[in-house]
Amino acid sequence: ADPAALAAARAHQDSLTKPRGALGVLEEVAVRLAGAAAVSPPPLPAPAALAIFAADHGVHAQGVSPWPQEVTVQMVGNFLAGGAVVNAFAAQVGASVTVVDVGVAADLHPSPGLTVSKVAYGTADLSRGPAMTAGQVVAALEAGIAVARELVGQGARCLITGDMGIANTTASAALICAFTGQDAAGVTGRGTGIDDETLTRKVETVRRALRVNGLDGGAENGSADAPERTSAASPAAPEREQASAAGRAVPPLETLAAVGGLEHAAIAGFILGGAALRVPVILDGVIAGSAALAAAALAPDVVDHCVAGHRSAEPGHRAALEHLDLRPLVELELRLGEGTGGLLAHPLVCAAVRVMHEVATFDSAGVTDKEA
Amino acid sequence: ADPAALAAARAHQDSLTKPRGALGVLEEVAVRLAGAAAVSPPPLPAPAALAIFAADHGVHAQGVSPWPQEVTVQMVGNFLAGGAVVNAFAAQVGASVTVVDVGVAADLHPSPGLTVSKVAYGTADLSRGPAMTAGQVVAALEAGIAVARELVGQGARCLITGDMGIANTTASAALICAFTGQDAAGVTGRGTGIDDETLTRKVETVRRALRVNGLDGGAENGSADAPERTSAASPAAPEREQASAAGRAVPPLETLAAVGGLEHAAIAGFILGGAALRVPVILDGVIAGSAALAAAALAPDVVDHCVAGHRSAEPGHRAALEHLDLRPLVELELRLGEGTGGLLAHPLVCAAVRVMHEVATFDSAGVTDKEA
Repeated sequence: ADPAALAAARAHQDSLTKPRGALGVLEEVAVRLAGAAAVSPPPLPAPAALAIFAADHGVHAQGVSPWPQEVTVQMVGNFLAGGAVVNAFAAQVGASVTVVDVGVAADLHPSPGLTVSKVAYGTADLSRGPAMTAGQVVAALEAGIAVARELVGQGARCLITGDMGIANTTASAALICAFTGQDAAGVTGRGTGIDDETLTRKVETVRRALRVNGLDGGAENGSADAPERTSAASPAAPEREQASAAGRAVPPLETLAAVGGLEHAAIAGFILGGAALRVPVILDGVIAGSAALAAAALAPDVVDHCVAGHRSAEPGHRAALEHLDLRPLVELELRLGEGTGGLLAHPLVCAAVRVMHEVATFDSAGVTDKEA
Repeated sequence: ADPAALAAARAHQDSLTKPRGALGVLEEVAVRLAGAAAVSPPPLPAPAALAIFAADHGVHAQGVSPWPQEVTVQMVGNFLAGGAVVNAFAAQVGASVTVVDVGVAADLHPSPGLTVSKVAYGTADLSRGPAMTAGQVVAALEAGIAVARELVGQGARCLITGDMGIANTTASAALICAFTGQDAAGVTGRGTGIDDETLTRKVETVRRALRVNGLDGGAENGSADAPERTSAASPAAPEREQASAAGRAVPPLETLAAVGGLEHAAIAGFILGGAALRVPVILDGVIAGSAALAAAALAPDVVDHCVAGHRSAEPGHRAALEHLDLRPLVELELRLGEGTGGLLAHPLVCAAVRVMHEVATFDSAGVTDKEA
């Protein structure tokens, strides 16, 4: 973040006709975006473009979701037909919707609003080995970067993350464990609605995924059931190494390949792309939060460009946001995904920035300031 | 609330292409509004109209605010010139702004967007006796009802409360004590920014106001410093009686007259008017919350039509919302008033209702439902 822009934004906030600090969290959002854009006031974050990254998950075979896998492709059809909640919310806030197939387990019919960047027909089962190869994770990241570049090229001045993928909260929980060092039981939730028995199985699946992929930071590192990690991910780019719970360093791209999903990788790329273009990225729920952990591990400064749109009901989301030091704007117990929570935050982010462009100062409005 | 519409709205929510309950608090908002409107889905709550009720307060003389009283009229000028935060937020969400002078301590120049319904040049000092006469409180209520009727007549399908009045959080704290039985220390806050010494004085002022006006439910009832209440408020309409902390019944209109402000009374009327016209009313912060306590004491069913836009940083607001059993949609530590928190909630309320109009069902979209 640019220190001069941060300082200018804070001083500007204090000159406006309102008690200092009276806009609470929104003042900090506006100041942060000024720092990220390196200009005060920061540009208005509109128009907004939502990208819904869709993919399937091999771990679905472990019975971690009560929804059949084909619901992923059915919901993609629903998005493209305009019949989903995300479409209603996007219409409400005036955001465009782009659906990106990065790994749906079926071929999709071409359709306006659909970008096909399919890397694979779903991931491998992360509880039995790496979900993605090194090539796949890089391809998915690059797909996300390309979507960010295209949307900004078309005029978007705010990007919003969205996702669709039955069983993708399982991958998110595993990523959150790997990047924050939290235990699976604390961050694995009921997703879109599972019973106690399924939750127990889901927690065990996350634990097994971490162990099998050598991400649990424990003694199992190098044990028989840990696959040869270098075969799964050998990214060319230099990476910061991720300290696991026990202090063992695992490169972030390797972690993402091991227990992520193709949509998680694409969203990480989307965040990296938005940040590189200095456009704010509003994060949706736990899928985006876990993807942002990967993006931040690759390039910590991207977090400056991120706004946490909401906090979902998933317990892992809290851990992810705390690790990223982001405060969510909306907390309404949503647990839908799709980008719905990110969309709801967009008017709030716009309002925060608009204040810096439009509100009069004490001097200009002839309003008496508070007695010192 | 209409039981058939509530049931229909719940059933409709459960048929939509999303996991049941996945929209959290927003599902409940949409269902409540269906019950209030007696139709499912409920009408879209747009366009929205914000009314900012402005008035001054005799209790300002007690040193409860660091802001000079003339800031009320200066900020009214700022609203009318479009330079305040509330104008920026209203532009963001597409709401109209009407400023209503119900009691500013100065004559205002006529201006587009200004409605003059001045009842008095500010209230009397509530810490020395009743803030308003019975005639004044009724006139202010009627002014609020008239504004609601006029805005709905002009096409508004959602009303948002706003306020301006230096020292008005002192009146709100006193109202909240009187209507909820809470102690002054727990509900009196720093308003738009006061130091410890001023806060202590403000708490003492609220305590004195309750005692002087016979609203503390204690032994002071009928003591020398309690004025003759019947001279302060003799409403013609039959009222439910308000049980104070000690169980003594004080009619709600009398309570409002004793320790309220002219804008509190007008907002109570605005809520009553909106509810009578079956239009949702989004409540802003602690001023609206305390006014809603008065409205609810007069007619409990009005709460069905109210949505708590946000929860402010003022401690009394939490007590008011809990008493009303309303959950706020936005919690961003705002402490500005004007209607800013109510405006930010408007897109969320629209999104909640829009889902019921636009989202496909599992059947219509051909999406497989969750396994039972």
